[in-house]
Amino acid sequence: MNYQELPTPALTIDLDILERNLRRMADYCGRHSLGLRPHTKTHKAPEVGRMQVEHGAVGLSVAKVGEAEVMAAAGLDKILIAFPIWGDEKLRRIASLARERTLLLSLDNEPTAEGLSRAASAAGATVGVLVEFDVGMRRCGVEPGPAALQLARKIEKMPGLKFRGLMVYPGNVWGAEADREKVAKQVAELVEQTLEPFRKAGMEVEIVSGGSTPSASLTHKIPGITEIRPGTYVYNDLNTYYQGVCKLEDCAARVVSTVVSTAVPGRAMIDAGSKTLSSDALGSGPRTGHGYVVEAPDAPLIKLNEEHGHLDITNSTHQFHVGEVVMVIPNHVCTCVNMHDEVFLLRQGQVEGTWKVAGRGKVR
Amino acid sequence: MNYQELPTPALTIDLDILERNLRRMADYCGRHSLGLRPHTKTHKAPEVGRMQVEHGAVGLSVAKVGEAEVMAAAGLDKILIAFPIWGDEKLRRIASLARERTLLLSLDNEPTAEGLSRAASAAGATVGVLVEFDVGMRRCGVEPGPAALQLARKIEKMPGLKFRGLMVYPGNVWGAEADREKVAKQVAELVEQTLEPFRKAGMEVEIVSGGSTPSASLTHKIPGITEIRPGTYVYNDLNTYYQGVCKLEDCAARVVSTVVSTAVPGRAMIDAGSKTLSSDALGSGPRTGHGYVVEAPDAPLIKLNEEHGHLDITNSTHQFHVGEVVMVIPNHVCTCVNMHDEVFLLRQGQVEGTWKVAGRGKVR
Repeated sequence: MNYQELPTPALTIDLDILERNLRRMADYCGRHSLGLRPHTKTHKAPEVGRMQVEHGAVGLSVAKVGEAEVMAAAGLDKILIAFPIWGDEKLRRIASLARERTLLLSLDNEPTAEGLSRAASAAGATVGVLVEFDVGMRRCGVEPGPAALQLARKIEKMPGLKFRGLMVYPGNVWGAEADREKVAKQVAELVEQTLEPFRKAGMEVEIVSGGSTPSASLTHKIPGITEIRPGTYVYNDLNTYYQGVCKLEDCAARVVSTVVSTAVPGRAMIDAGSKTLSSDALGSGPRTGHGYVVEAPDAPLIKLNEEHGHLDITNSTHQFHVGEVVMVIPNHVCTCVNMHDEVFLLRQGQVEGTWKVAGRGKVR
Repeated sequence: MNYQELPTPALTIDLDILERNLRRMADYCGRHSLGLRPHTKTHKAPEVGRMQVEHGAVGLSVAKVGEAEVMAAAGLDKILIAFPIWGDEKLRRIASLARERTLLLSLDNEPTAEGLSRAASAAGATVGVLVEFDVGMRRCGVEPGPAALQLARKIEKMPGLKFRGLMVYPGNVWGAEADREKVAKQVAELVEQTLEPFRKAGMEVEIVSGGSTPSASLTHKIPGITEIRPGTYVYNDLNTYYQGVCKLEDCAARVVSTVVSTAVPGRAMIDAGSKTLSSDALGSGPRTGHGYVVEAPDAPLIKLNEEHGHLDITNSTHQFHVGEVVMVIPNHVCTCVNMHDEVFLLRQGQVEGTWKVAGRGKVR
């Protein structure tokens, strides 16, 4: 079946592009002797997790206990929960998983470590811990400098925990290449400030986990980082495109949708709205619009309602008609994938199968 | 169990508030002899659909064939698919449903009507049709005036279809009360311009379906409208609150979340991000922020990542600590509910059960 015959809206993944994206990131990490622990939040599909491991990933990253469970149930291992999980029920699930799998958790405070320690030791399990420090994102993480060592020393004494290293989320490495280079330099200084106390104390830091698709290719300029956690690179999106991190032809995820109304002058409506594409604004480049229409880039997707996408066709040379199928590249692929129970797999336009977005809905 | 003990993030529905909201809208419709055909996109739960019918709804509205199937499977009937569905597979499913249930579809063009006619007559079914006309939203709908009559006459001749009336979506009735009143007056004129040709032609218009929670209470000022399709009113949200359509205590849907990090000065992070609350911007009132923190309204939710909510606590008198539970009222409840597989039902803070968000993921 050709993608044009799919009931719409349908999120499609081009397998050739996906495979090329996987190889590229693996090659970069190989060249610079960096570990790759991809963030599965983008695809939420064990099949892609397995492909990442086959491309040399040292493990996987997730944000939720439920996502870790989905990946573990598919036989995947060495899972970093890159989120400071709180709450007895979730900590018990982590401890239970840790009896079968090598698990890591990032955290930035003592109470969270104590909760994890109680749950792990009650289950007779060991959970690895990465202490998160802040490199300018102002989200989670202790201050750069000696605070990480202080917390690491406390964790070393807690039963059921094993201090394995540090984590940063350089989400502030964002934007045009020059901007990203500049912030990456600042990150490098903060990493050095935080590693130095460990060296002085003679305390081993096995892992220093860095991040993110936009910052990935700058990681070799941040000494000390041992692995990265990019997510978006598997599929890419308009946010990565407009940062110059990929080309449009590297965008593997496209929403196939149908023009359902051209009754209002100057407008064409497609059946992909915010419950299909997500309402995430474009965070780079022109910072306007809700997606890129492959067949008619001169018809901006100016507005989304829940189920309607509003194309402004005033200045388009394309002749839109009801029933026509168009492909939309989303602003932010991670939140777009999260709208779908399944993705359709394409090779040269032919549908070759589907993957369940198995981690979808695992909010806890 | 108290809601504070729920694993987080968890979307909760206060049943007392829900029931009051249901009664209020039913009372308004009763007072003005208006039909109520609530849009189920907000809750996507057959249980709420049933409560709406018990409160006198004449039927239900949905946007997707899959949503219609979910409601029909639960025994609900008289379902309006308020979206111009295109595509053979979906039209076959509609026709199949129409053999068991009374179905209506809104549309604004002949090819869509022809496709529906082919599918319905092939299945030996009849589908009711509402012709949509535009009242200023510039989304779907033929122009106000004689165009609706022209399309209605064509539909009357198509096998498998029954012309039952007209539909408008007055989504442009939005904002402060004075703004809404002003636009409602314009809508009334356009409705009159469109009904007049039908009267002149002696053609019956059984249904004129209007809309929306923000416009609902103005419907009696739009002569000709016979029924309304509000969705949000069941749960309400910040968008309805800031338009003065409800009070904060009428917001039935609240996301219970946990403070997971206070390590960065001036910030508290909660475990509810855009994959929990949705990234829909606030479309009314201050038009900034991503939700209202009930326990600390002076701590604005300034930013969402996928799984992190960033509270700016710089000017808050509340003392935030890791592990603390807070409730967040979302900007837009329809897209927030769509992020969750289930909702937790509260009465006076106690969890009384759950409902599956059964229509979630039914993008087609």
